[in-house]
Amino acid sequence: MSLKAIIYENGKLKILDQLLLPEQSQYINIAGVEDGWNAIRKMQVRGAPAIAIVGCLSLAVEISNRSFDNKSDFVHEMEKKLNFLITARPTAVNMKIAADELIKLSHVLDRDEAVAVDAMKRTVLEAIESMLDKDISDNMMIGKHGAGVILSRASVGNTVKILTHCNTGSLATAGYGTALGVIRKLNELNRLEHVYCTETRPYNQGARLTAFELVHEKIPATLITDSMVASLFTVGHISAAIVGADRIAANGDTANKIGTYQIAVLANYHNVPFYVAAPFTSIDLTIPSGKAITIEERPAREMTHIGDHRIAAPGIQCWNPAFDVTPAALITGIVTEKGVFKPDELDKHAS
Amino acid sequence: MSLKAIIYENGKLKILDQLLLPEQSQYINIAGVEDGWNAIRKMQVRGAPAIAIVGCLSLAVEISNRSFDNKSDFVHEMEKKLNFLITARPTAVNMKIAADELIKLSHVLDRDEAVAVDAMKRTVLEAIESMLDKDISDNMMIGKHGAGVILSRASVGNTVKILTHCNTGSLATAGYGTALGVIRKLNELNRLEHVYCTETRPYNQGARLTAFELVHEKIPATLITDSMVASLFTVGHISAAIVGADRIAANGDTANKIGTYQIAVLANYHNVPFYVAAPFTSIDLTIPSGKAITIEERPAREMTHIGDHRIAAPGIQCWNPAFDVTPAALITGIVTEKGVFKPDELDKHAS
Repeated sequence: MSLKAIIYENGKLKILDQLLLPEQSQYINIAGVEDGWNAIRKMQVRGAPAIAIVGCLSLAVEISNRSFDNKSDFVHEMEKKLNFLITARPTAVNMKIAADELIKLSHVLDRDEAVAVDAMKRTVLEAIESMLDKDISDNMMIGKHGAGVILSRASVGNTVKILTHCNTGSLATAGYGTALGVIRKLNELNRLEHVYCTETRPYNQGARLTAFELVHEKIPATLITDSMVASLFTVGHISAAIVGADRIAANGDTANKIGTYQIAVLANYHNVPFYVAAPFTSIDLTIPSGKAITIEERPAREMTHIGDHRIAAPGIQCWNPAFDVTPAALITGIVTEKGVFKPDELDKHAS
Repeated sequence: MSLKAIIYENGKLKILDQLLLPEQSQYINIAGVEDGWNAIRKMQVRGAPAIAIVGCLSLAVEISNRSFDNKSDFVHEMEKKLNFLITARPTAVNMKIAADELIKLSHVLDRDEAVAVDAMKRTVLEAIESMLDKDISDNMMIGKHGAGVILSRASVGNTVKILTHCNTGSLATAGYGTALGVIRKLNELNRLEHVYCTETRPYNQGARLTAFELVHEKIPATLITDSMVASLFTVGHISAAIVGADRIAANGDTANKIGTYQIAVLANYHNVPFYVAAPFTSIDLTIPSGKAITIEERPAREMTHIGDHRIAAPGIQCWNPAFDVTPAALITGIVTEKGVFKPDELDKHAS
């Protein structure tokens, strides 16, 4: 049974506070957009798909508990709140795509004179609520396609060993997971021999969250530090590395958690296939290449402290980019809900 | 003024407890070999040269405070204690080389009938005490040669940016440092623009110790996580990477702190020169290649906890190799007290 990190019912939303994991499993209430923005910014929820879903659901909470006098008030409110939500973590594209779609939907409904303000609100709420189900069904397809492509390179009946980075599981999505969904699927098929997860400094999403999910679901797993990847490739007989994506450019260049790019270089050097697993909502065709992706830099304190405990010498400067960009040339395949594509085939398949 | 981590005078030894850095600068007394072994095992002192010096000085403390009835008792005691000290951290070769030399010296003195037991003890004590001075003077030569080779590739008068890993400074040696000695020398010459140090998981020697030394000496420095090395190489205009060595095989393959090998692969990919800085005492000509080097695996707790604070999900398995081996082919040059050599030239220059 996979973890349930986002619980939404009848205009009420609570999420698992990921900052407290693995020590405490505590849910926090999200009473509206302000709470949603803060939870995203503070990384109580993270992972590009989960950010979009929690952001939009926080808006659903707010509008379901309010009445609107007229349609243009409603449209104005949608635009203001959605544009604000985008600013919480600018690198993750899914929130922006979801915001654009919801704004577009409210404009369409606004122009349709047959739709009254209450029906408009109801339609928007349904659109937001369907994101949860859609994300889980997309992830299950990603799992199926990813397991398929990895097993196609394994001998018949053989098991595989996989490396993953950061957290892309139930805690980063509405449910199943992207890269971790592929690993989950391999395990369901009894074809997963072992998974290695990096601790993913500085925020330790691998050690705290991925390891937590893997232990929770009894998937055979070992934690390594980010500095052990190349050593693992020399001794671990790794079948493939698979990671998620925060944003994929039209040419297949992929922005993802810091450390992804070097895993791709190391995989390439050691002839290990390197896959990116992400729904099409992570693909931003308006961005021609990774060069146009702005990398968020985060506070030094994430590197110098763990909780209140200082782990670095006082006075040292830090460089803390949250993401890096892996060039398309280092990516063996991009695993989506529609199938596995070469990075340069993406634009053909985007609807 | 560089830090003084090992203080020895008149048969008394105290060392800076590196486990408490950077929060506390506290010295601990080493009353004999048992204390020395424990300090090495618990990593209150680390770094291959420092391990050998503290190990041998702990023996000096013990024998300087004892009298011996006859020469064969003395020889027996030396053999027993030195062979015990080697077992504290088996990967570091310097302790073994120092032990072999001291055992050889005591055998030579034992056979010389003109030497009485007291003179024998005095000669051995002087040999041990001279290790401290020799290490510092060797390191200053390493600094000079390393700065020279790095600057030979820079434009005249230009400054350089350097990446280093783990701790190879005053805290890992008797004084000046090996790789950090090269960086210190570049800074003394006003040719160092900036140094980047990795935090060096899982034991954080970079964040705790290297950063501490760099701040202490006001060397312009920035801390990165081990996952940021490739990103730094793409944006940081890094002139060279330089690291220390725990043990160098006859063919130049180098065992060093986990994470070194992948920095070498990443440097190679990004056309950044990659240097190893180490005294000849780190070169073990009895080992033909890195394949023969046994890699110490350390407890999972180093990865799952920082102090008493758990940072990984309970129940997760860990793989914690302390070292990795960088093949000679990835090493641009080995910087020693005798000059900078290609890895395959080492055996010609070993005396």
